[in-house]
Amino acid sequence: MLVSQNPVFIPGPTNMPEHIRKACDMATIDHRSPIFGKILQPAREGVKKIIKSNNAEIFIFSGTGTAGWETAITNSLSAGDAVIITRNGMFSHRWIDMCQRHGIIVHVIEAIWGDPISATKIGDLLEADNDNKIKAVLATHNETATGVKSDIGAIRGAMDSAKHDALLLVDGVSSVASFDFRFDEWRVDILVAGSQKGFMMPPGLAIVGFSEKAMQANESATLPRTYFDIRDMHKSYASNMYPYTPPVGLMNGLHVACNTLLEEGLDNVFARHHRIAEGVRTAVKAWGLPICANSPDCYSNTITAIRTPEGFDSTQIINHAAQKYQVAFGIGLGDVAGKVFRIGHLGMLTDVLALSGIATAEMVMVDLGLDVTLGSGVAAAQDYYRNNSGLL
Amino acid sequence: MLVSQNPVFIPGPTNMPEHIRKACDMATIDHRSPIFGKILQPAREGVKKIIKSNNAEIFIFSGTGTAGWETAITNSLSAGDAVIITRNGMFSHRWIDMCQRHGIIVHVIEAIWGDPISATKIGDLLEADNDNKIKAVLATHNETATGVKSDIGAIRGAMDSAKHDALLLVDGVSSVASFDFRFDEWRVDILVAGSQKGFMMPPGLAIVGFSEKAMQANESATLPRTYFDIRDMHKSYASNMYPYTPPVGLMNGLHVACNTLLEEGLDNVFARHHRIAEGVRTAVKAWGLPICANSPDCYSNTITAIRTPEGFDSTQIINHAAQKYQVAFGIGLGDVAGKVFRIGHLGMLTDVLALSGIATAEMVMVDLGLDVTLGSGVAAAQDYYRNNSGLL
Amino acid sequence: MLVSQNPVFIPGPTNMPEHIRKACDMATIDHRSPIFGKILQPAREGVKKIIKSNNAEIFIFSGTGTAGWETAITNSLSAGDAVIITRNGMFSHRWIDMCQRHGIIVHVIEAIWGDPISATKIGDLLEADNDNKIKAVLATHNETATGVKSDIGAIRGAMDSAKHDALLLVDGVSSVASFDFRFDEWRVDILVAGSQKGFMMPPGLAIVGFSEKAMQANESATLPRTYFDIRDMHKSYASNMYPYTPPVGLMNGLHVACNTLLEEGLDNVFARHHRIAEGVRTAVKAWGLPICANSPDCYSNTITAIRTPEGFDSTQIINHAAQKYQVAFGIGLGDVAGKVFRIGHLGMLTDVLALSGIATAEMVMVDLGLDVTLGSGVAAAQDYYRNNSGLL
Amino acid sequence: MLVSQNPVFIPGPTNMPEHIRKACDMATIDHRSPIFGKILQPAREGVKKIIKSNNAEIFIFSGTGTAGWETAITNSLSAGDAVIITRNGMFSHRWIDMCQRHGIIVHVIEAIWGDPISATKIGDLLEADNDNKIKAVLATHNETATGVKSDIGAIRGAMDSAKHDALLLVDGVSSVASFDFRFDEWRVDILVAGSQKGFMMPPGLAIVGFSEKAMQANESATLPRTYFDIRDMHKSYASNMYPYTPPVGLMNGLHVACNTLLEEGLDNVFARHHRIAEGVRTAVKAWGLPICANSPDCYSNTITAIRTPEGFDSTQIINHAAQKYQVAFGIGLGDVAGKVFRIGHLGMLTDVLALSGIATAEMVMVDLGLDVTLGSGVAAAQDYYRNNSGLL
Repeated sequence: MLVSQNPVFIPGPTNMPEHIRKACDMATIDHRSPIFGKILQPAREGVKKIIKSNNAEIFIFSGTGTAGWETAITNSLSAGDAVIITRNGMFSHRWIDMCQRHGIIVHVIEAIWGDPISATKIGDLLEADNDNKIKAVLATHNETATGVKSDIGAIRGAMDSAKHDALLLVDGVSSVASFDFRFDEWRVDILVAGSQKGFMMPPGLAIVGFSEKAMQANESATLPRTYFDIRDMHKSYASNMYPYTPPVGLMNGLHVACNTLLEEGLDNVFARHHRIAEGVRTAVKAWGLPICANSPDCYSNTITAIRTPEGFDSTQIINHAAQKYQVAFGIGLGDVAGKVFRIGHLGMLTDVLALSGIATAEMVMVDLGLDVTLGSGVAAAQDYYRNNSGLL
Repeated sequence: MLVSQNPVFIPGPTNMPEHIRKACDMATIDHRSPIFGKILQPAREGVKKIIKSNNAEIFIFSGTGTAGWETAITNSLSAGDAVIITRNGMFSHRWIDMCQRHGIIVHVIEAIWGDPISATKIGDLLEADNDNKIKAVLATHNETATGVKSDIGAIRGAMDSAKHDALLLVDGVSSVASFDFRFDEWRVDILVAGSQKGFMMPPGLAIVGFSEKAMQANESATLPRTYFDIRDMHKSYASNMYPYTPPVGLMNGLHVACNTLLEEGLDNVFARHHRIAEGVRTAVKAWGLPICANSPDCYSNTITAIRTPEGFDSTQIINHAAQKYQVAFGIGLGDVAGKVFRIGHLGMLTDVLALSGIATAEMVMVDLGLDVTLGSGVAAAQDYYRNNSGLL
Repeated sequence: MLVSQNPVFIPGPTNMPEHIRKACDMATIDHRSPIFGKILQPAREGVKKIIKSNNAEIFIFSGTGTAGWETAITNSLSAGDAVIITRNGMFSHRWIDMCQRHGIIVHVIEAIWGDPISATKIGDLLEADNDNKIKAVLATHNETATGVKSDIGAIRGAMDSAKHDALLLVDGVSSVASFDFRFDEWRVDILVAGSQKGFMMPPGLAIVGFSEKAMQANESATLPRTYFDIRDMHKSYASNMYPYTPPVGLMNGLHVACNTLLEEGLDNVFARHHRIAEGVRTAVKAWGLPICANSPDCYSNTITAIRTPEGFDSTQIINHAAQKYQVAFGIGLGDVAGKVFRIGHLGMLTDVLALSGIATAEMVMVDLGLDVTLGSGVAAAQDYYRNNSGLL
Repeated sequence: MLVSQNPVFIPGPTNMPEHIRKACDMATIDHRSPIFGKILQPAREGVKKIIKSNNAEIFIFSGTGTAGWETAITNSLSAGDAVIITRNGMFSHRWIDMCQRHGIIVHVIEAIWGDPISATKIGDLLEADNDNKIKAVLATHNETATGVKSDIGAIRGAMDSAKHDALLLVDGVSSVASFDFRFDEWRVDILVAGSQKGFMMPPGLAIVGFSEKAMQANESATLPRTYFDIRDMHKSYASNMYPYTPPVGLMNGLHVACNTLLEEGLDNVFARHHRIAEGVRTAVKAWGLPICANSPDCYSNTITAIRTPEGFDSTQIINHAAQKYQVAFGIGLGDVAGKVFRIGHLGMLTDVLALSGIATAEMVMVDLGLDVTLGSGVAAAQDYYRNNSGLL
């Protein structure tokens, strides 16, 4: 059996509800027939509701979050344009790299991995940009590598204060559908999301939202693009078509996933993610280990990165958990490689399954000689869960 | 979502591996074509290997374990025949009732619910049966209601000592494929099993094995039967056919399930069930609660019934766990209704998932005011699992 | 690949819609929890609507149609009771056999295989039954072996005219949900159906309906029964429970299947079966072969048995179609073995798929030297379908 | 029911075997664990066998064929480079457009839609390219819009004769795995394929093969790229990793699809496609309609485009078939929009299912007043199939 029956605790792809998997596993239809529109348009509408937008243009690509990033930059920027990106984890790091490969000048704000994005520093750079060279601010809403959430509203605030008209591009891959994302309120210009996180689906869809302003910026953007060209998408969508062969099953799954989330209620979905995350953090505290995120206000509700003691290679935890217990945790990446391990707690998860992950992490750490007491984290999380369950 | 993503901890139907479910979910074939034989015969052969028999005739019915019981008695007994059954739980109780409804005279050996079957008492009754009125001894290998395993080999020993030629009919519904069953060595005459326990399948198949002696007894048995008549089955099987419409998908699943078990290795399957069960029992001990089974040598490796304190209605645990945590445990049945709750730990299960069940039971008991310490059972089980994992 | 991608043309199990298969393929739930009632009761209600009954008690067993027959007779009759059965095909033949094995005296009305049941002959026997020895009339609504539909309303009429209070037991296995069945109007006392025909599901459910009168008859019926005892079912259903382990997934599938049929509309379902059947019959006529059913008013809309020329072994058609074209047709059974082959056209089927079956039958017959013109039956059926499609 | 039970006859996505769909529908695994390598590498090896290559580097992207094209050009060419492309259908047309959007100079050889690529004309252009401005020849192996197969071996021959070292880039999206593709023998430099055609899978994978020479060209190619950058892929593959989140389920499906094709045997797979295609072409001839492809040697075995009479809008056929019969055919695209309709006959298909498509097309054409005789095409195809079946 290649696949264990245990849940995964990686920060995505997540555990998937069976009915969403069944919606993705769809027999072939003619994607040029009217049936397709009945899948495409409700999926796009569903995404809009989940990101709290009335006006975003939603584009759905066969691809991953990385494809979504490339869609975002190639459709809004040109070689030689300048952008601001804060490097506070692996995913912001990679987005910087992508921009540079496309000839974009990146003003990198270096940050400690564990810190959120500093809106102030962005504001300062924008204030200093007298000749409007900076075309966009790129921000990773949730740094999956460190479990750090940044305040997109505050970034927008800083941009407003600086009276700068740069675009605001946001990576919401590991935040959207798991915690609050307010596309309209924050005046996000381009959002990048993926199917395999909060939407509880298989990987394979890049989900991108464009504001009206971003749609205009697209007109003058000169980076070469075809597959990711939203103009082709936009034109095709108007007649319920797709510019090439659409991943129909995954789109159908996205439609169903959105309905599932909206039926649970976004507030309930966000509260569930908060509750499960808080239980995990309570357990970590009981273990006496520091959380990688540097302050509670930037704790992520989708992923917790946990620092292991100095001199201990945290990658052992991931390998040992996989081999001995068939449980997958997330490794440390980049600056925190070997220094943290990560417990993903997003997508389809329950308090009960979270406890199995916490219990496994404890066994693994004791197996590897770390000074952790069996049952300590579990007991702390149990206490939290039983007192904070929606159903008392 | 009607179905929670949490594992179930009822004593069957069990959690199912996905590849077995997919094998059951089969497109329609012509069950009168040669394809059918390629499903039927390997399924029958697989069952023989799992019950360690060279010569058993295996019959597979669309039905449940209860259908298997009725197959067993109607094909070997006649109204007016006498049998011996020990009542030590709900399932032996029900089998007694079925015999009586069919006009069979049942010598009931009453036992405390929590005790195994006494081979001695059976031997005594057989010794006293001078005019050979007793046609069969019916024994429940594993009493699912109490979590009590009985010693079938010892019963056969007592029958041998008494030099009595009664048939030995065994209910192995909740033992076969989870712990050792030796059809040939114990000279079992009729075995009754089902798809939904150790075979990790959906309910819907009664799986019955007949010894050569039982096949002969069938010739003279006069209870009316058609659907359950193994003569029709036997004749049809010889030409790879079925006497009526076979449940092809489930049979295909049984074939795959047997292969899965045999590939893991029966010793490994049994060791896994023992290890998971022992972890649960270690947790129960840590909680300070008594196990319903009266001595360690009759502890079941598929199900543990746990006595709750005097004056506490154990059914609350099941209801509360279902409502607040979406986790299913087994209720107390019959003599122990309200006095025990049950944790099923058979079929597809892992140490990690077992810990989630133990953790849930703890939360529930604390919620309901029982004197149990959060994390106590989990820690005990973790310690056991990490020291006894196949992979150290 | 064990399973061909071609549709099957056996008279059941039928081709299945994917969403019904997915509904059957269900993760394990606790069948003792309230969730179960939300599956059981809507499934029972759905069946009632499909058989047009307000008052029938619907019982659902893990088993097949044969199990349904045994449920019907053991719950309403006693050894020594007399019944009337017309033998006009294999399935009535087998029901006679079952009754006889249970000690029931069967007044067999012999009929030509191809004729429907004669209501007059039943009426005559009942009129002559002055001392009310006859307890029931058993009728097969649709003889799957010959493709002959009988008139249950006329049988009820004959019973009324004879002023006889025998029970009316009807085998509707291959009629219910495919053509009109009026439980209440015809005052049927016990109906037997199965999951694998008009319900477009896998085999594995016997679906039985009891009238109030049949429920009363059950009280005095003395045939031994446990698994099939509707008293246990009835009592359990009242508290949303099941007397043993229910086949939950199949029940869920039945619920979904009923909804699917009711959403299409029974009249539309029946019209679709009629249209597809009529197309097949038109093709048979074009081939110049006689239909086994002896007159158009008894033509079955679920199955057409086609007589092959004298001296030709019709079983060749089935074997050749399976081997060369991977298409399954139905063989001749019993009196018409070797003389007919059968095209099943019930359950999930479309005009388009029916044409593939007709085209295959033509190729097979030409391959085997029969005097049939390629395309002749197809053209006739095409003409019929295109002029009678619901959508013109 | 959104999805009809009828097969589709579009030229991809194709009908899918159930076991391949089940392989794609996979529970979440940790794509950074060793399990991933056991899916990735066999999938890559399988593709190599199917394209008859020992040395190709296979890259698998989450994307479609269009993504594969962009991978091909951005990894081998730079803005300002010149290439040769023959425009003989919609897909070559689109590839031209993509190149132009990327600043590549395209020498377009205009061809009649219905003609194959002229190797001679390519050779002439290369001969004239004295200063080696032409960096690549791009060829569409099978024009899905017209049902025209081109001779890649002949193109390579012309390149050799011209002693030109341009790269040979081939779109094999609708040919690979359906008819013969010889990557090594033809010295193809970059091949583009997709999951949704001959591999009988859902859309969502771009499958790309690079020769050693193409790998070298990649080093100097300067078009900006990240998502499609094969250097990241190449580096990650070496350690069984993926540069971002891989579409694991689809990759698992690709592994299983390759095994399925290789077990059937490539020669058998190709012969099956030829046989089914030939049956369709025989039917078209019987209808008296011209095939769009201009000569038999360029007839495609995956798709047949059929010219409808002057003055008739062929799009009616597609719409009418979808609405009245729930069957999907392919519309005419580009230069042949309104002039042809297309029957796809690739991927999972059988003679029997092909007949249902032919029969449907006949009904549709007669419904729409075309001068076609019902049954005429079916009879011709039946005759062909029954005489050319693998199993006589």
